[in-house]
Amino acid sequence: MTDRDTLSRRQLLLAAGVAGAAGGAGAATDTGPARAPSSSRAPLVTLNGRSLPFKMKGGVKEFHLIAEEIEHEFAPGTRIKAWGYNGSTPGPTIEAIEGDRVRIFVTNKLPEHTTVHWHGILLPNGMDGVGGLNQPQIAPGETYVYEFTLRESGTRMYHPHADEMVQVAMGMMGLIIIHPRVDPHPVQRDFAILLHNWAVHPGTYRPDPSVMTDFNLWTMNGKVFPMIDPMVVRTGQRVRIRIGNLSMHEHPMHLHGAHFKVVGTDAGRIPESAQWPMTTSLVPVGGTVDIEFTASLPGDWAFHCHKSHHTMNAMGHEIPNPLGVKQRDLDPQISKHLPGYFSMGEHGMAEHQVHTDMSFHDTPENTLPMAMGKGPYGNLEMGGMMTILKVRDRLQSYADPGFYEAPAGTRARRVSQDPNFKP
Amino acid sequence: MTDRDTLSRRQLLLAAGVAGAAGGAGAATDTGPARAPSSSRAPLVTLNGRSLPFKMKGGVKEFHLIAEEIEHEFAPGTRIKAWGYNGSTPGPTIEAIEGDRVRIFVTNKLPEHTTVHWHGILLPNGMDGVGGLNQPQIAPGETYVYEFTLRESGTRMYHPHADEMVQVAMGMMGLIIIHPRVDPHPVQRDFAILLHNWAVHPGTYRPDPSVMTDFNLWTMNGKVFPMIDPMVVRTGQRVRIRIGNLSMHEHPMHLHGAHFKVVGTDAGRIPESAQWPMTTSLVPVGGTVDIEFTASLPGDWAFHCHKSHHTMNAMGHEIPNPLGVKQRDLDPQISKHLPGYFSMGEHGMAEHQVHTDMSFHDTPENTLPMAMGKGPYGNLEMGGMMTILKVRDRLQSYADPGFYEAPAGTRARRVSQDPNFKP
Amino acid sequence: MTDRDTLSRRQLLLAAGVAGAAGGAGAATDTGPARAPSSSRAPLVTLNGRSLPFKMKGGVKEFHLIAEEIEHEFAPGTRIKAWGYNGSTPGPTIEAIEGDRVRIFVTNKLPEHTTVHWHGILLPNGMDGVGGLNQPQIAPGETYVYEFTLRESGTRMYHPHADEMVQVAMGMMGLIIIHPRVDPHPVQRDFAILLHNWAVHPGTYRPDPSVMTDFNLWTMNGKVFPMIDPMVVRTGQRVRIRIGNLSMHEHPMHLHGAHFKVVGTDAGRIPESAQWPMTTSLVPVGGTVDIEFTASLPGDWAFHCHKSHHTMNAMGHEIPNPLGVKQRDLDPQISKHLPGYFSMGEHGMAEHQVHTDMSFHDTPENTLPMAMGKGPYGNLEMGGMMTILKVRDRLQSYADPGFYEAPAGTRARRVSQDPNFKP
Repeated sequence: MTDRDTLSRRQLLLAAGVAGAAGGAGAATDTGPARAPSSSRAPLVTLNGRSLPFKMKGGVKEFHLIAEEIEHEFAPGTRIKAWGYNGSTPGPTIEAIEGDRVRIFVTNKLPEHTTVHWHGILLPNGMDGVGGLNQPQIAPGETYVYEFTLRESGTRMYHPHADEMVQVAMGMMGLIIIHPRVDPHPVQRDFAILLHNWAVHPGTYRPDPSVMTDFNLWTMNGKVFPMIDPMVVRTGQRVRIRIGNLSMHEHPMHLHGAHFKVVGTDAGRIPESAQWPMTTSLVPVGGTVDIEFTASLPGDWAFHCHKSHHTMNAMGHEIPNPLGVKQRDLDPQISKHLPGYFSMGEHGMAEHQVHTDMSFHDTPENTLPMAMGKGPYGNLEMGGMMTILKVRDRLQSYADPGFYEAPAGTRARRVSQDPNFKP
Repeated sequence: MTDRDTLSRRQLLLAAGVAGAAGGAGAATDTGPARAPSSSRAPLVTLNGRSLPFKMKGGVKEFHLIAEEIEHEFAPGTRIKAWGYNGSTPGPTIEAIEGDRVRIFVTNKLPEHTTVHWHGILLPNGMDGVGGLNQPQIAPGETYVYEFTLRESGTRMYHPHADEMVQVAMGMMGLIIIHPRVDPHPVQRDFAILLHNWAVHPGTYRPDPSVMTDFNLWTMNGKVFPMIDPMVVRTGQRVRIRIGNLSMHEHPMHLHGAHFKVVGTDAGRIPESAQWPMTTSLVPVGGTVDIEFTASLPGDWAFHCHKSHHTMNAMGHEIPNPLGVKQRDLDPQISKHLPGYFSMGEHGMAEHQVHTDMSFHDTPENTLPMAMGKGPYGNLEMGGMMTILKVRDRLQSYADPGFYEAPAGTRARRVSQDPNFKP
Repeated sequence: MTDRDTLSRRQLLLAAGVAGAAGGAGAATDTGPARAPSSSRAPLVTLNGRSLPFKMKGGVKEFHLIAEEIEHEFAPGTRIKAWGYNGSTPGPTIEAIEGDRVRIFVTNKLPEHTTVHWHGILLPNGMDGVGGLNQPQIAPGETYVYEFTLRESGTRMYHPHADEMVQVAMGMMGLIIIHPRVDPHPVQRDFAILLHNWAVHPGTYRPDPSVMTDFNLWTMNGKVFPMIDPMVVRTGQRVRIRIGNLSMHEHPMHLHGAHFKVVGTDAGRIPESAQWPMTTSLVPVGGTVDIEFTASLPGDWAFHCHKSHHTMNAMGHEIPNPLGVKQRDLDPQISKHLPGYFSMGEHGMAEHQVHTDMSFHDTPENTLPMAMGKGPYGNLEMGGMMTILKVRDRLQSYADPGFYEAPAGTRARRVSQDPNFKP
């Protein structure tokens, strides 16, 4: 062990969030090419996503959402027929500025009617999008137009309020980010994530909207780990992560390597006096949470839902676990009745790993392996709702910098082979 | 589009909750007959419910709860044998004033023993109602008396602490509202809601207390939408909604058309410095949440649990969804084995709607249609835990004013038929 | 009724948490022998647990965790093969002081590889314990060493980040308590609890890690009520309860007899301006919550998860409930197919109680009765995640003082036998 793993006082102050000017300080030493000038806003990064283009017409920002059936890929090996907007699920992020007047056309190319509700936005009642209550349903083939002024900044969402249980389960959702004119709490990195759950039964190609709790795929912006973009930041930067949840479960989102504060909800900024320090924020269904922190510790830090089944991919939860049972003779017999069946392993699931690829083992058709991330030190054994916060002292760009190499003496190490080892 | 949908600055300040005197301001222009004088407290409105009468005896308020089996109707078409108090589930709301001494008789007319626990109230240990621990069980036919002084104001609950899993599942619960002597945060409208879940298997007439997660009926004060009373308020009024949860799931209660603050729990008022702005509050099981806001935007605003299955009525979650499958030939075959079976529809559930009634389709005996609200623009496609906040500039009374008619130019509109339409 | 149940003004101020000096006041009148001097820290009490011994080596605290298969007993009558640390699940609590340098050896005696993640601790990336990402997996038989400095005080956790879903489900977890050098918010009693859920199918002896929601055993520190240690405190003492959750469900922890404040998370202290008063705190999965209160009311107060199924022991949730059905003839027939089957009872579950023992009824082999606590007034009808806060005016030690005897006139009492009874 060396002294290299001793964190500097500044790093700790940054990590604890007590250095109020931390973001600025980080920015002051930030010389990388990808950084915007300090007077301007950090670009919003929707992981694995994009923002919806708009046209200005007479001072109004015009957007166009197209509700439609799409081909969606969670990760190579699992494709489904889903419903989304403009070719993806979630749909593209709508970005605008506080005070903007927006006009949003919605064209329905689904086989059934729909509407769009603008979750968390204060607007005239007739624009609220509850089908039957605030407007007629948008029939297949029709286009409707919504128009309103965005009075407040913050993280909002859009989704149907028509046959909602089915349409949301099929993937119809997106984020709305309303930037303040001047951000009193500027950040250098600004990420956006929408959480969802899916029930795709083995061998099928469409989500099952009748499932209420027992989902088998857990996604950030429609993807599972390791197909979810990492969040790349420079040491010392102030970072915001906006997390929306339109699944059926609360998700306790846990960040390694930093203590954050919960600074906003879908109703706007939480006053500083009311903010809680956390490493795990329970994001409610139908809510958004903005968290902010200073990335003071370089490294590769996991960011994931802490429900351990939500960082796995498809499993058959209804099959009793034969852990501790010799299964060599059992598997072929079960497989006769459940094609593609694999037991959990006699000693745990780790034994399933095949070191020549990223998967735990082969799986039924159109089914992901349960855990598939590969790291610098072997398989990560994670899937689902997880990504990596990559904090680096130096960055040439915000492209994935690869894996972190811990300085000598700052990594857990094997000692059992040392002849002098006596714990 | 006209300018009518531009919200006034005052409306926005009200909506953002920054106009501290908003309630007063609203009240000052409030000339309707149903309004109480500003010096007095707004009457508590338990949606679809009532408050328990009391008698004064020597300075003590005497109440009488009768635990008993009842006939309960979630909505026309679904009646069950439930357990409740004084003829209903939830039982009547107990209302009192901070400082009151209360004496509560509890008569047990159930077929098994019971007790009553006064959730969140600080009282002598022998009055706490945990059967076996704080008192003997109340045997069938017996009457017990509880007596204590209510030292703090706020939203509390009562329920059995005897065979609790069964008795709560059967409907035994109620609200206790303790008003402050002088309310430092007066409101003009004060609503109370208790959330619950029920497992009533198709064709049966009693809730199944052994169900832990997979419930099929989600209620506010024992009713499902659209049988739940609307919350009628005048524009500019300060509104409080008290929400208790004695179900088995957290419920993220989401309000359209206003940003609220969470101002209280079952331990009392949250200091203003600690209050969060929200549109969705996750109400914990065994907890209460008071939310407050100014109703600044006229209209019909949905208020509902944001878990999309919780705004539906009974479903068979265990039946795989044949969305995208031609079902015309399949249904009769499945129906042979599952009487009353209806598939989800080939293109979604919207196709099931029968426009001559409020239901998606006919259902098995004693089973509600999944979604049944009818609005001014067609079926609402909602059920379960939902009601409507009806905000009106003018009100003759707090009776249901019917549906809101959005001023011309303030409603989403169909443009695809316009010859000039080019998005 | 007498005046004895009138709470004093001081008691109420204490209970409401408004008497800031309450802890000190309580301490000032605290003359019992078990109390530490006011200048020193209250010893941490891990219910049913212990703290891990350490050795000082060159200014570093050395700990040694051994991951291994163990025999675990939830309560007499249910033993399983689980995975834990140093012979128990949860493993021993790691206690240290803010600023301590710690060196932790981890020896893997499991049949598969593992790692340890130090949840919520800011440390060098190579010490973070995500297998594959931050370090190689620790193979069976190997010992790894972690070393870092504890910069912040608070409640943290440790658990594997390798085959995590399986290993956590099998019981691998423990608490880390980092005391401040000087506690600005001293308490006289300091309790620590780690929540978990288990799926032990009837007749089996190993948890089933493939279960995602339908668990049947709910534990505090690996035990079920009434095998969970009570929390014994003296009237007037300031009390802290630290609650971690590594299960798959949020748990709304509810305290009778006091209003607490949520004062900390796994990222440290919540500023006083942001603290919420509560009686029920929803502890997120993968999070910790510290609550504090003054124990102002003497008595035996239940402290439990408020999800009613989580205060029961093993149940067959998949068997429809025959409540209201005459079952005398039915049970033997069902039992032919489900050995050990017991129906819920015709009139509720209370009828199952056998007064000669603590159980509701006999159960299948290796299965606990659903509810088993016995109190001074009969069966408590609770199991699972529950214990009792025992507040006493006088204590000779912190050993279990037995049950509270409510002063005459302060207990709910039967009045139906009184000849003069007219409610």
